[in-house]
Amino acid sequence: MQILRTIQELKAWRKALNTNDIGFVPTMGALHNGHASLIQKATSENSAVIVSIFVNPKQFLAGEDYTQYPRKEQADLAMAKGCGASACFLPSEDEFYSGDDTLISAPKELASVLEGQIRPGHFDGVCRVLNKFFNLIKPQRAYFGQKDAQQLLIVQKMVKDFFIDIEIKACQIVREADGLAISSRNAYLNEAELLEALKLSRALKKAKSLIDLGTLSSAEIKKAMKEILEPLEIDYIAITDKNLIARDNVVLDNTLILLAVRVGKTRLIDNIWV
Amino acid sequence: MQILRTIQELKAWRKALNTNDIGFVPTMGALHNGHASLIQKATSENSAVIVSIFVNPKQFLAGEDYTQYPRKEQADLAMAKGCGASACFLPSEDEFYSGDDTLISAPKELASVLEGQIRPGHFDGVCRVLNKFFNLIKPQRAYFGQKDAQQLLIVQKMVKDFFIDIEIKACQIVREADGLAISSRNAYLNEAELLEALKLSRALKKAKSLIDLGTLSSAEIKKAMKEILEPLEIDYIAITDKNLIARDNVVLDNTLILLAVRVGKTRLIDNIWV
Repeated sequence: MQILRTIQELKAWRKALNTNDIGFVPTMGALHNGHASLIQKATSENSAVIVSIFVNPKQFLAGEDYTQYPRKEQADLAMAKGCGASACFLPSEDEFYSGDDTLISAPKELASVLEGQIRPGHFDGVCRVLNKFFNLIKPQRAYFGQKDAQQLLIVQKMVKDFFIDIEIKACQIVREADGLAISSRNAYLNEAELLEALKLSRALKKAKSLIDLGTLSSAEIKKAMKEILEPLEIDYIAITDKNLIARDNVVLDNTLILLAVRVGKTRLIDNIWV
Repeated sequence: MQILRTIQELKAWRKALNTNDIGFVPTMGALHNGHASLIQKATSENSAVIVSIFVNPKQFLAGEDYTQYPRKEQADLAMAKGCGASACFLPSEDEFYSGDDTLISAPKELASVLEGQIRPGHFDGVCRVLNKFFNLIKPQRAYFGQKDAQQLLIVQKMVKDFFIDIEIKACQIVREADGLAISSRNAYLNEAELLEALKLSRALKKAKSLIDLGTLSSAEIKKAMKEILEPLEIDYIAITDKNLIARDNVVLDNTLILLAVRVGKTRLIDNIWV
């Protein structure tokens, strides 16, 4: 596996490839089994796979966990290699951002609700960095986890709006045996908080079982979820269509249930499609 | 020459090309000798040349001349063909803009002065449409006239910031025999106004001759230009470096002199590098 630290190295690697059949897995490092599943899927579908590792400062708001965000490069490289990646790209902030940068505004309607309401500007930063990666790497396919459901929808919209010739692959959420959605931020949780964090997947499971039993009212489903989550601080519980427009009633096979909850100082998100 | 009216047709044309050696000339139609020189230059440097004709609504401000902007498709197609273009792409607004579009903000420092100050948002619209064209067409080179000096600098910056793999070719201003910079908007001028419009190139010529004689003070040069331009309404006369930062004194071979002037209801721009 090649380790690329500069744009020049990335370009040389890209040019030397004899194929356009390239899969790209963008990450902020601190790789876990969720990332591993993305890389493995990419490896199974492409001749070459490149993983980026870049804690993108532009998608963190002031006061968020940019400086504390877990960084563990050696373990990340070993995991990427173990999953079959052909290359890892670890660009520097200096090469990625110069003064007076051309900016991107994520699609307003999709990006101003839920995560975007609590983290204004976050998705602009996500779009900004991904557009750079896409243009540099020119992959045929890019792999995103469904855990960041809103991010996935926004990236799909940007790719469509910008006419970017890349297939966006949505990959299933990977969970611990106990149901906890795997996330780099789980590393912030102590033992007691890890138990509390189980309430997120439990609330989603409850929603699913209510729906399976015929309850379609969003208000009723949310009430039941809230009962499970309390006394955790809930940023939002949302039941929406694929454009993140709130639904009063679940429409089967076409509804997204999302939640964001604070467990101690850590903010966790999770979701399911029903 | 192929005439492409849909994205599907454009993609089919692009896919069938056996080369990446493609030149792109973006235009808003109403083609004149300035465009002809861009297309001819592109033809001389590329295996295939595609010209876009699209009056981009997003780069006009409310109250500007979007509806009156000259449209003469048949003459445009004939001129593009005559200059050796391989294809013309005339997309529809519907295919280019959907709801909740992902937006681009032109680099703030470059885009907020001069034209950007008078036409706020104009360059955002320019970047937005060009980024779409670049991703769809994937040319190796794109051709821009130096008459829109600020636009050229902003496009170069966007291409750099976004890591777009396209070479931006800056092409000399084409002038009428009497010195008037050729522009689609010259069509708005009546006979008397055409004579008044000569003052723009004359003012620039005056600046050049003062500099050749040793006058480097921007204030003195501007004063002499103003005397020539009056009583026309002057939007700005600017003497700047390549980042559009005002210079107190001309630095030879590295200074841009720009002006924007109203001749009747028509707004004209012109510039020279000295």
